[in-house]
Amino acid sequence: MNKLNVVGQSVERPDAYDKVTGGKGYPVNVRLPGMLHGKMLRSPYAHARIISIDASRAERLPGVKAVLLPRDVPQVKFCPVYFVPVQAPSMVLDFDVMNPEIVRYVGQPVAAVAATSAEIAEAALDLIDVEYEELPAIFDPEEAMKDGAPQLHPDAPNNIAKNPSFAYGDLDQGFADADYVFEGVYETQRVHTCYMEPRVCVVDMDRQNNVTIHVTTQHLFGTREKLAFALGLPESKVKVVKSPYIGGGFGGKLELTAMEPVAALLSKKAGKPVRLEHTRHEDFITTTRNPIKVYLKTGVKKDGTFTARYAKSILDCGAHATHGSEVIMVHGAFGLFFNYHAPHQKWEGYTVYTNNMIGGGYRGYGAPQGSFAVESQIDEICTKLGLDPIEMRLKNARKQGEPHPFNPAFTLATYGLEDCLRQGAEKINWSKARSAPRSEGSKKRGFGLAVHPVWVSGCMGFPDIYEHSGAIIKLNRDGTADLSSASMDIGSGQITTLCQIAAEELGLPAGAVRMSSCGDSDNLPFDAPTHASRVTYSSGNAVKAAAAAAKKRLFDVAATMMEVSPDDLESCNGRVNVKGSPDKSISIAEIAQRAESPFVQMTAEGPKPTTIEEKGTIIGVASLAPKSNPTPCAAQFVEVEVDTETGEVKVLHAVYAHDIGRAINPKAAEGQVEGGFQQGMGYALMEQIQFDPETGACLTSDFLDYKMPTAMEMPRKMDSIFIETDEPTGPFGAKSLGECCVITPAPAIANAIYDAIGVRFTQLPITPEKILAGLGKL
Amino acid sequence: MNKLNVVGQSVERPDAYDKVTGGKGYPVNVRLPGMLHGKMLRSPYAHARIISIDASRAERLPGVKAVLLPRDVPQVKFCPVYFVPVQAPSMVLDFDVMNPEIVRYVGQPVAAVAATSAEIAEAALDLIDVEYEELPAIFDPEEAMKDGAPQLHPDAPNNIAKNPSFAYGDLDQGFADADYVFEGVYETQRVHTCYMEPRVCVVDMDRQNNVTIHVTTQHLFGTREKLAFALGLPESKVKVVKSPYIGGGFGGKLELTAMEPVAALLSKKAGKPVRLEHTRHEDFITTTRNPIKVYLKTGVKKDGTFTARYAKSILDCGAHATHGSEVIMVHGAFGLFFNYHAPHQKWEGYTVYTNNMIGGGYRGYGAPQGSFAVESQIDEICTKLGLDPIEMRLKNARKQGEPHPFNPAFTLATYGLEDCLRQGAEKINWSKARSAPRSEGSKKRGFGLAVHPVWVSGCMGFPDIYEHSGAIIKLNRDGTADLSSASMDIGSGQITTLCQIAAEELGLPAGAVRMSSCGDSDNLPFDAPTHASRVTYSSGNAVKAAAAAAKKRLFDVAATMMEVSPDDLESCNGRVNVKGSPDKSISIAEIAQRAESPFVQMTAEGPKPTTIEEKGTIIGVASLAPKSNPTPCAAQFVEVEVDTETGEVKVLHAVYAHDIGRAINPKAAEGQVEGGFQQGMGYALMEQIQFDPETGACLTSDFLDYKMPTAMEMPRKMDSIFIETDEPTGPFGAKSLGECCVITPAPAIANAIYDAIGVRFTQLPITPEKILAGLGKL
Repeated sequence: MNKLNVVGQSVERPDAYDKVTGGKGYPVNVRLPGMLHGKMLRSPYAHARIISIDASRAERLPGVKAVLLPRDVPQVKFCPVYFVPVQAPSMVLDFDVMNPEIVRYVGQPVAAVAATSAEIAEAALDLIDVEYEELPAIFDPEEAMKDGAPQLHPDAPNNIAKNPSFAYGDLDQGFADADYVFEGVYETQRVHTCYMEPRVCVVDMDRQNNVTIHVTTQHLFGTREKLAFALGLPESKVKVVKSPYIGGGFGGKLELTAMEPVAALLSKKAGKPVRLEHTRHEDFITTTRNPIKVYLKTGVKKDGTFTARYAKSILDCGAHATHGSEVIMVHGAFGLFFNYHAPHQKWEGYTVYTNNMIGGGYRGYGAPQGSFAVESQIDEICTKLGLDPIEMRLKNARKQGEPHPFNPAFTLATYGLEDCLRQGAEKINWSKARSAPRSEGSKKRGFGLAVHPVWVSGCMGFPDIYEHSGAIIKLNRDGTADLSSASMDIGSGQITTLCQIAAEELGLPAGAVRMSSCGDSDNLPFDAPTHASRVTYSSGNAVKAAAAAAKKRLFDVAATMMEVSPDDLESCNGRVNVKGSPDKSISIAEIAQRAESPFVQMTAEGPKPTTIEEKGTIIGVASLAPKSNPTPCAAQFVEVEVDTETGEVKVLHAVYAHDIGRAINPKAAEGQVEGGFQQGMGYALMEQIQFDPETGACLTSDFLDYKMPTAMEMPRKMDSIFIETDEPTGPFGAKSLGECCVITPAPAIANAIYDAIGVRFTQLPITPEKILAGLGKL
Repeated sequence: MNKLNVVGQSVERPDAYDKVTGGKGYPVNVRLPGMLHGKMLRSPYAHARIISIDASRAERLPGVKAVLLPRDVPQVKFCPVYFVPVQAPSMVLDFDVMNPEIVRYVGQPVAAVAATSAEIAEAALDLIDVEYEELPAIFDPEEAMKDGAPQLHPDAPNNIAKNPSFAYGDLDQGFADADYVFEGVYETQRVHTCYMEPRVCVVDMDRQNNVTIHVTTQHLFGTREKLAFALGLPESKVKVVKSPYIGGGFGGKLELTAMEPVAALLSKKAGKPVRLEHTRHEDFITTTRNPIKVYLKTGVKKDGTFTARYAKSILDCGAHATHGSEVIMVHGAFGLFFNYHAPHQKWEGYTVYTNNMIGGGYRGYGAPQGSFAVESQIDEICTKLGLDPIEMRLKNARKQGEPHPFNPAFTLATYGLEDCLRQGAEKINWSKARSAPRSEGSKKRGFGLAVHPVWVSGCMGFPDIYEHSGAIIKLNRDGTADLSSASMDIGSGQITTLCQIAAEELGLPAGAVRMSSCGDSDNLPFDAPTHASRVTYSSGNAVKAAAAAAKKRLFDVAATMMEVSPDDLESCNGRVNVKGSPDKSISIAEIAQRAESPFVQMTAEGPKPTTIEEKGTIIGVASLAPKSNPTPCAAQFVEVEVDTETGEVKVLHAVYAHDIGRAINPKAAEGQVEGGFQQGMGYALMEQIQFDPETGACLTSDFLDYKMPTAMEMPRKMDSIFIETDEPTGPFGAKSLGECCVITPAPAIANAIYDAIGVRFTQLPITPEKILAGLGKL
């Protein structure tokens, strides 16, 4: 590979200025002329039959322009998750926008209003009279699976929405071969991604059923497909406008909810655009990381070699399966099954309906729940058997050159787990620090580690999941280029990194390629969602291909101008030159000007025609599926301090080593890692959505009720190490980063807490109360 | 050529619904959050020196957010015309946005204000104190050319901005060879295009000099280039948002005016978007068809054969040359010089500065002024020599297969003038009707004809004029396609016709291709302006090429699905089938679905992978210059009734026969012709901007002061005949239509008036006053 000029530089984010000066680019700031404001009435019951709805008083309230009842909503059932086809056979198709008969969780929408102000709409909700007949509700998934429990959906006996399993070998044999067998039950809680920009949309639906929507979404084309289906329209009737960026997503804006179709139908009724913005409480009850309970049993030899692994996972999907159809699969595969080698393995999963709110996608997508179990139990094994936790993991880990664990068509061409462990350990001074004194009064220090050994760079090879990307690159006459991509920047930074990839390929300087801020699902090529750690690798490959197509045209024009063969050219730093002769060069701006000049130019010597072949905007387009799905991997080390008086846990130092193939923008990559740690640490120590156990009502309303780590709680010291293994199928060697970093903090912190105080916690979050209880002080 | 399925159908306009229900798509309806309103202060003097400007009182007015003075405006001179480079050597570079020293016409902007309402901005203008020193002004171009006249620009002695000429042969010899020599002076007036949507822009310019503009423009990229230059920025800092359409243009929105840069600079000063909308009076003084006085001398043989033609044209360009640099060229070439064969010819043109307002582009672009002279004089010759006006024209006309008159690299591959004349004559019953009684009391009927023999399908081959087009076509999974093009629909109908061309090429049914309404100068490929009758031919060829590129990909995917070679496929009516086997077919929707499906699909038999090669949005892109510049041609016949008591002229019947190669959408083509006739008839009979001869002030303020034909005045009977000559270089045989139809009405009507009452009028408009005066009744 040639020397890289732009890739590998910590180029400044072009969106920084707008973001710190108010953020014109966020959908929450969209205002359309004549726009109305919508609000949804939600069920106060966890399970009830709707007897009647009377909205006549609401309709008479001055300022109310439309009232929407369930009978106004097309009654179709589908999977609202963006990354799969709307009726994907692999998913559970149980979602509806507004059910006219049954409510299944507290907060299910039952009616909606559009009015000239949000206040009037809110007031109108109080004037809608709904008569319910309450039904028995169930909130615990294991109770829900028992015979005799209330049944939530007709096609799901015992409330089991989905029950996948993976297995190979002979489990009994494997446990018989073991010197030791370890068993544990690990439980994780319901948390929210806590994106800063609430879910919001502004929708205009005209009488010809043309729908235009501005919306916080991680996937233009997902919103298009699912919203069209919910409204009973052909896809192309829905135009989803690409916002320059949205205020966070993290998997939390990866499915259609009632909001979008309700706003559309209100708009059509009212004949005006309708804006619908969730309150923070509405966001909390709309999308959360599914709680999973994992029963984990592992057989090991004395030396730490696995002989058998068995796990059973019970996922609480709430009232509808939605993401729970797929989270259970990813959880089983990448949280439990594929992580390590073992001669005999089995996993079974249960996605179970309850009258809790619907779950959702959240960075890591089931893996954090699994990793917490696996990496905690490995720590128990190492402690018990006196094994080195680094060597124990490497002994069972996969190796470079092996077939890809979930798809033998792919190979682990790059796999830097050992480097991650060794370099991470060195950075935190693993051997020395652990033997130093670690107690100061009531404060005990401890060290912990966890790895995430197998992950994805997208969904290539997964059944039913979209995985292709497109890009268009156009050169401007001032030597800049515009990149058009449907890939949504949810804070993940592709505005910066995809432009760097394009600049590197074209030979433009950093900053000369911009992400076009104008586009929609009509005029942009399809891109799969911003999810599954896929953007740098998958969208990056499409961007590189589009840039290569534009470069071909660039070189053709340059070759005519320089009277050489295009094959003899190369480009760098804004200029095209004859290979090996940097002095024989011409600027890219000049070439673009020639390509877009008049056919006949007036010169001092009179009119001078150029050739027709030189004419035409230099533009390249690509749309493709990636050729592989390389796995990144990561090792996480933390040092914690546990206050045995207060139960408070402080993370003093966090070291994260990632094999990401290539860091396109090291600063941006560091930002991803630190953000991931913040979410992982919140999961480990403090975050939890609270419910009333009697009614199932969500008690968490806003960020006063929901504690997540702020700068105050973050470690004073954080180190990110990037192992650059140069993935051959990746753009300039890159694979993915987005999610590994959110998976390991919980087990690493739990392991460090055990190291500090000798108490093992198997239920998240590990709050001060739990610490004190564990220490026998409560 | 295969049978055409979509081309040739009068497909309904997809923009009709929005246009008749309020027109969300017009820039005049754009509102941005926080938007301010701008107003410009304009000079009351035709020629003066600015001594001082004091805006302090205006700045203190509550609600005023920014005041802009000439010193705040970058002082650069350039050509604001969109279709040429901003400093094109062939153009006069004399335009500036706000001159700090000199005003040269009544209405020149001298300051501007942005305020929270248009009313406050207007009130603030009254608080700006400008001290002027008046200078002598000149309003008549022939006076302006005389020695001793006030000099307007330093580089233009005798106020001559430009003085082109064409000649061949020996003029003296030619006149010596003539049996008769005819001389005449023909004068045309200043008129406005009368687009319905006023010039308006909403501009946001941030502190990093990123400019986003929504604007009534005929050319996204022209606005981008000229506005960037006026602001001293690289081109790519300016993003021009494409409106779905604008409310008319007709050449009147084909250059930058002060409005756009002033709004941008106000926006930057105020830190908010600024909207600036012209009043109708401001529009009248901003862009008009240049008045031209033509001295025409023609030598003929007895049989009507031309022996020599000489013309001199004096164009009043007002205070700045702008379009006057090019209108004079087109006028000379296509209004006078190229129309007919003659062994000896000479033309000289003068673009002359006066203290009148600036001229501009207007459909026909100089040709109507020339055609009025030429076609009137031919009528005089025929009358005098007793020649048949059809045969006389055909005798001197060009013929199919000849070299193209202005560029011998091209050939007149198609040329249907004789058919136009014969079929038009038959339609109006030329021979019989003229011999019938034509008088009824005071009302006299008359018949007239005029042709426009040589025109363009764009600017291919013209010096310094942009002429290439681009398009992107993307297929949707529901069997529709989206076309992205920077070609602005100014009412000309390309939303319909370009989509028909794409549908025909792809094999989709009519209506299945939509023009994408989202795009801007960042993400769209360059397209030359909507002008010069170029869109159907030039943009149409690019659209056809983009569709062909998409079709190639479509056939590749279909071939894999059908297990045949792509070469064996054809498409029609939404399906791809094996050539000659319509039963072996597959729908385009299905193919697009396959291309955008997940790589592995779950089926009843388990997961089923497709090939990577099948994956990826079906998308095609093209950007190219056309290969020729074919000439359309037209013959116009009218029957008029002149009321000799009132002087009123009524056009009873208009017949227009056009060789346009192919009518892509016959109804839309008829619309073009009828709209062109409306403008041509207004030019002939009633339209004229009025000036105070003392001060040079424009007295025309609105449509109460400016009479143009409405449905009341239009002929009760109009017939459009399209001669389809199947141009080999055109998309499905098409060449152009947009302008021929506006050129001939004035001479045809003047000739018919002569036929009716025997009086020849050589000054437009032929008002009732002039008729009565010509009849000796005034």
